[in-house]
Amino acid sequence: MSAEGMGPSTPLIEYADASPEVRAVYDDIMATRKTDWINNFWKALANDPPTLQRIWSNIKQVMGPGALDPLTKELLYVAVSVTNGCSYCIASHGAAARNKGMTSAQFAEMLAIVGLANETNRLVTGMGVPIDERFR
Amino acid sequence: MSAEGMGPSTPLIEYADASPEVRAVYDDIMATRKTDWINNFWKALANDPPTLQRIWSNIKQVMGPGALDPLTKELLYVAVSVTNGCSYCIASHGAAARNKGMTSAQFAEMLAIVGLANETNRLVTGMGVPIDERFR
Amino acid sequence: MSAEGMGPSTPLIEYADASPEVRAVYDDIMATRKTDWINNFWKALANDPPTLQRIWSNIKQVMGPGALDPLTKELLYVAVSVTNGCSYCIASHGAAARNKGMTSAQFAEMLAIVGLANETNRLVTGMGVPIDERFR
Amino acid sequence: MSAEGMGPSTPLIEYADASPEVRAVYDDIMATRKTDWINNFWKALANDPPTLQRIWSNIKQVMGPGALDPLTKELLYVAVSVTNGCSYCIASHGAAARNKGMTSAQFAEMLAIVGLANETNRLVTGMGVPIDERFR
Amino acid sequence: MSAEGMGPSTPLIEYADASPEVRAVYDDIMATRKTDWINNFWKALANDPPTLQRIWSNIKQVMGPGALDPLTKELLYVAVSVTNGCSYCIASHGAAARNKGMTSAQFAEMLAIVGLANETNRLVTGMGVPIDERFR
Amino acid sequence: MSAEGMGPSTPLIEYADASPEVRAVYDDIMATRKTDWINNFWKALANDPPTLQRIWSNIKQVMGPGALDPLTKELLYVAVSVTNGCSYCIASHGAAARNKGMTSAQFAEMLAIVGLANETNRLVTGMGVPIDERFR
Repeated sequence: MSAEGMGPSTPLIEYADASPEVRAVYDDIMATRKTDWINNFWKALANDPPTLQRIWSNIKQVMGPGALDPLTKELLYVAVSVTNGCSYCIASHGAAARNKGMTSAQFAEMLAIVGLANETNRLVTGMGVPIDERFR
Repeated sequence: MSAEGMGPSTPLIEYADASPEVRAVYDDIMATRKTDWINNFWKALANDPPTLQRIWSNIKQVMGPGALDPLTKELLYVAVSVTNGCSYCIASHGAAARNKGMTSAQFAEMLAIVGLANETNRLVTGMGVPIDERFR
Repeated sequence: MSAEGMGPSTPLIEYADASPEVRAVYDDIMATRKTDWINNFWKALANDPPTLQRIWSNIKQVMGPGALDPLTKELLYVAVSVTNGCSYCIASHGAAARNKGMTSAQFAEMLAIVGLANETNRLVTGMGVPIDERFR
Repeated sequence: MSAEGMGPSTPLIEYADASPEVRAVYDDIMATRKTDWINNFWKALANDPPTLQRIWSNIKQVMGPGALDPLTKELLYVAVSVTNGCSYCIASHGAAARNKGMTSAQFAEMLAIVGLANETNRLVTGMGVPIDERFR
Repeated sequence: MSAEGMGPSTPLIEYADASPEVRAVYDDIMATRKTDWINNFWKALANDPPTLQRIWSNIKQVMGPGALDPLTKELLYVAVSVTNGCSYCIASHGAAARNKGMTSAQFAEMLAIVGLANETNRLVTGMGVPIDERFR
Repeated sequence: MSAEGMGPSTPLIEYADASPEVRAVYDDIMATRKTDWINNFWKALANDPPTLQRIWSNIKQVMGPGALDPLTKELLYVAVSVTNGCSYCIASHGAAARNKGMTSAQFAEMLAIVGLANETNRLVTGMGVPIDERFR
């Protein structure tokens, strides 16, 4: 399938207009997440079906059951998105975190850690602190 | 107190050479963390005692008991440090995370999430995906 | 010429309102690009004519004919802009790339590379991978 | 398989010490790239075989034959890595680019574009330039 | 106090609706800055009073009288905010800088430096320039 | 002149080995800075003379006499370099700042601002704070 509309303001492909291969991914997203709708990220990626399939496959593997609990995983996703300044990602993974039980106090604490880590990362870099032997 | 040595390759102030006000912070760090040594970050910050006190006070408040468990908090710290490319911070907070029980599988999963979030943050930005109404 | 209006929401200087030195740059931009309009980036920079001249001179030298073909050069510009999250720059250099023949499939492939590079950059950093002798 | 050694200074797993599943990935990397050695990135990822397989599968799909030529794809990888400050990634993808024919003049031109894009990205952001209607 | 409303689109707490502890911080902000209003950053942080108090305390210490003049301090704040792409921060600290006497020519010169530093940072990184002995 | 050696670990071109056009830039750098040596950044850029000339011309224009004093300009350069994690740039512009009179207390204060700005940039982004009308 072509990716004709893809560009800096990529059109969103609705389920009704999607090809069978795109619908198959949409169906798997909804089944995996036990939801009945698809958010815009996937509708934009659907312009390039191989990328849609690849990214969904990655998300499913990385964000699925593993060594960390589901809420911690979403919090990590939000922490990175805040550091990079991706508002869409903060909104979407923030919503996912709330669905998995995140309280406002947990959001506030995560954000405080993200802010402080961004600060101390620069203090360390600015002072050129050598790594302690005990950390190696 | 002056900060005479401070600069891009800041000297490290050992406990034996520290002023009483710096020693007081060092003592509080060791007591709070139940350890008998001070890592280089604090020894570098000690060149500017008001900043040493301020940053320790922030770390103590933000990383102390709260709404998230101690291991999750360290994982968030590492996730931000990896995103920013601060090797010292990855080493020091990685060590703290292991002290709080982080397994290698948890480290690997955290890192996989950080990598994937950095990827999808850019896909979202490059496509200019609008925030879904349901996320607002 | 003064830069009186310059600030975080810089006014745009239209051709009709521009000084002769600003018009000279605008004319050169339109002649070089074989177009009849000026985009907002230059209209904002025009508040500070020396910077307008300097940046246009840089763009003209760096983005002009050289060792890489014009489309590759625009794709590199977009790749950096996506990594940094500059929406205006993605839009303007994305448009320039399309003018130079970029297909949607090429845009999608560039974006996939940008995403993956942002991911593996962090995996490398998080694991502290040493540079192979063969790469030195 | 466990990922016992994984952490901020991840051990490298040589072919001789690798499990069959890791060797299978190593073999595919060498066959695909028509080379007889494995670089450290993969040896570090091998501590977590599912991630090794996932990332290799992504790289193979994204960096394989497509809409852009192989050298352009490596140049894009280097451009992102320079922007993010990942020295290992600059070295490894810089070597890959040279293997695909990159000249020093092309490297220099790519780097000049990366530098200039990082500059103009900030000028745009600092001035708050609105996106032109024609770019939408 | 709880932080019930905190999340990716945090509600703003007006003075009239604020608890006594939040009002105490608002009062101190207005008194310190000799102004009669509170900007949105603080109204959002007020959802989590301990963070509101902590961040205000930090800002007051770091941005108060010291070794650098007040305008230089605001320019540094803007320079970092431009590099990180935080539009709100550019607007708020840009306004603070103007209140402290920043001219448009100074804004333009600061921005030119920020742009150029972002460029040369990448040239240095891309070429792997070793630090000169004289700089150590 | 060719740029044959240019790549991720670019060779340094000493004055004795430089072409006349490169020596002309080196001479201008030393005369402008009233010094008798050239630092590694320029020796690396010299592999690509047009870029050497272009970047020096930019640095000379932007960092020369203007609306901000020379020390403030170097501090801004360091602030950006710390935020981006460019150790070479922190070392070189930190040295330049000391040559222009920077005290350790000023370095410490600059670094504290950089750290705090990196923190509050993320708090603002994470909470999605809207820009106040008064800042527009």
